[in-house]
Amino acid sequence: MREISSSDNKLIRQAASLGEKKHRDALGLYLIEGPNFIRDALTFGGRLRFIFIRAGATSAEITAIREAAEEKGLAVYELAGMAFEKICSTQTSQGIIAVAEKRVWTEKEFFENEGSDLLVLDRVQDPGNLGTMLRSAEALGFGGVLLLKGCTDLYGPKLVRAAAGSLFRMPVYFADSPAEAVRLLEKHHKTMYATVMTGGIACYDADISKDAAIVIGNEGSGVCAELLEKSRKLTIPMDGDIESLNAGLAAGIVMYEAFRQKRKTF
Amino acid sequence: MREISSSDNKLIRQAASLGEKKHRDALGLYLIEGPNFIRDALTFGGRLRFIFIRAGATSAEITAIREAAEEKGLAVYELAGMAFEKICSTQTSQGIIAVAEKRVWTEKEFFENEGSDLLVLDRVQDPGNLGTMLRSAEALGFGGVLLLKGCTDLYGPKLVRAAAGSLFRMPVYFADSPAEAVRLLEKHHKTMYATVMTGGIACYDADISKDAAIVIGNEGSGVCAELLEKSRKLTIPMDGDIESLNAGLAAGIVMYEAFRQKRKTF
Repeated sequence: MREISSSDNKLIRQAASLGEKKHRDALGLYLIEGPNFIRDALTFGGRLRFIFIRAGATSAEITAIREAAEEKGLAVYELAGMAFEKICSTQTSQGIIAVAEKRVWTEKEFFENEGSDLLVLDRVQDPGNLGTMLRSAEALGFGGVLLLKGCTDLYGPKLVRAAAGSLFRMPVYFADSPAEAVRLLEKHHKTMYATVMTGGIACYDADISKDAAIVIGNEGSGVCAELLEKSRKLTIPMDGDIESLNAGLAAGIVMYEAFRQKRKTF
Repeated sequence: MREISSSDNKLIRQAASLGEKKHRDALGLYLIEGPNFIRDALTFGGRLRFIFIRAGATSAEITAIREAAEEKGLAVYELAGMAFEKICSTQTSQGIIAVAEKRVWTEKEFFENEGSDLLVLDRVQDPGNLGTMLRSAEALGFGGVLLLKGCTDLYGPKLVRAAAGSLFRMPVYFADSPAEAVRLLEKHHKTMYATVMTGGIACYDADISKDAAIVIGNEGSGVCAELLEKSRKLTIPMDGDIESLNAGLAAGIVMYEAFRQKRKTF
């Protein structure tokens, strides 16, 4: 473990700047806070660049991470409390924080599992929702998540926590516009299904077991007109006076339905 | 609209005390904050006792609520900013807050819909999760929610927000112990299904369309041994390295599955 010297202050300033999206975008880096998520990153191929440990943080968990990281040749720095606090966005760091490189998936990698279902997210704003969707997509056998421009930043600290290890494992690809998303999905033979609150086919009456692209829209305004026009409409049938389920829950239910159809072949 | 006088300060002190569970328990009252939830309460039979409006809060929404409340003979008080802030737990009150009476369902009312599915919650701790489950239970056609002792308070402010109107509409009944829950469910011919992370029947392979009591356990430790012993085990099949879905999402998926089985009779 290295102690940080004044000439390394550039590293600290750079890490602290990653609290803002514009710096994450410019540098291609983001922060992972807390031992659980950093251990997941080490285990599941998250590309770490540095680890910072607060001086005096010597729990068994942190020590194990430090040893594993040093074995992989990763630079681990010990920081005095004040320097460490400069980097943290939250109280959840528990004395350890890592700088990680964003992973870029190519179109080929993203679409390589033929037949797989994809989740398509249109201006999903809440990082907790988006993180949950990433986890559910992985748990329920989806092949990847296509993020349209206008979604919340995939690498913001709340999302990193909500997605947990799924951020390191799930293929994610970006589309700059609805037109670009449609072009990609058509090129790769995906059938688009937009989830709508009312009036669509009941999700258990649609065959979404294979090559389906399930489109989830903005929490307030739903799926945009351009994507709606190219999609079949899918609704989760509901009783009662409920206006709608939470977006994360609705996405989870439709993905569960797709998963059930895949598994249940009789 | 009445203005509050010094002799009414007792009302304010009482309302402010409802931020704490022990006072909610003692008085049988709770707080509803913000125009949306208060409007839902007025529409769907939430039993309001008073409404407090912050002096100067004269949005169209608040004015409409005030008029509807006064038409029903409800007392509406205008409070100076400081007195109003004393009552609020959050920034979400938007200038209006109501004191409501807890609704008590009898065993007969709770179990009267023969054949209906029930949700059974064992030490669910997170108010956001429990509120979401209440909403999902209503949306997905469940007959009621049985809360075991040890769940978070049904009438805490976060839960009131997360449950929204479902709090006023969904039948809720309380059981003091697992043994009491088992006794009630057996008496009313419900079959208990405990959700477990691994090793249960796949939820789509169990018939949960009728008279099923779906047991959701504590977010950390799951369903308690006493309930497990009396229950069939149910699992949401999953792929990947995910440890488990969020409790609110898992409950939503199992309830969706029950709903699908009800609707899908061929």
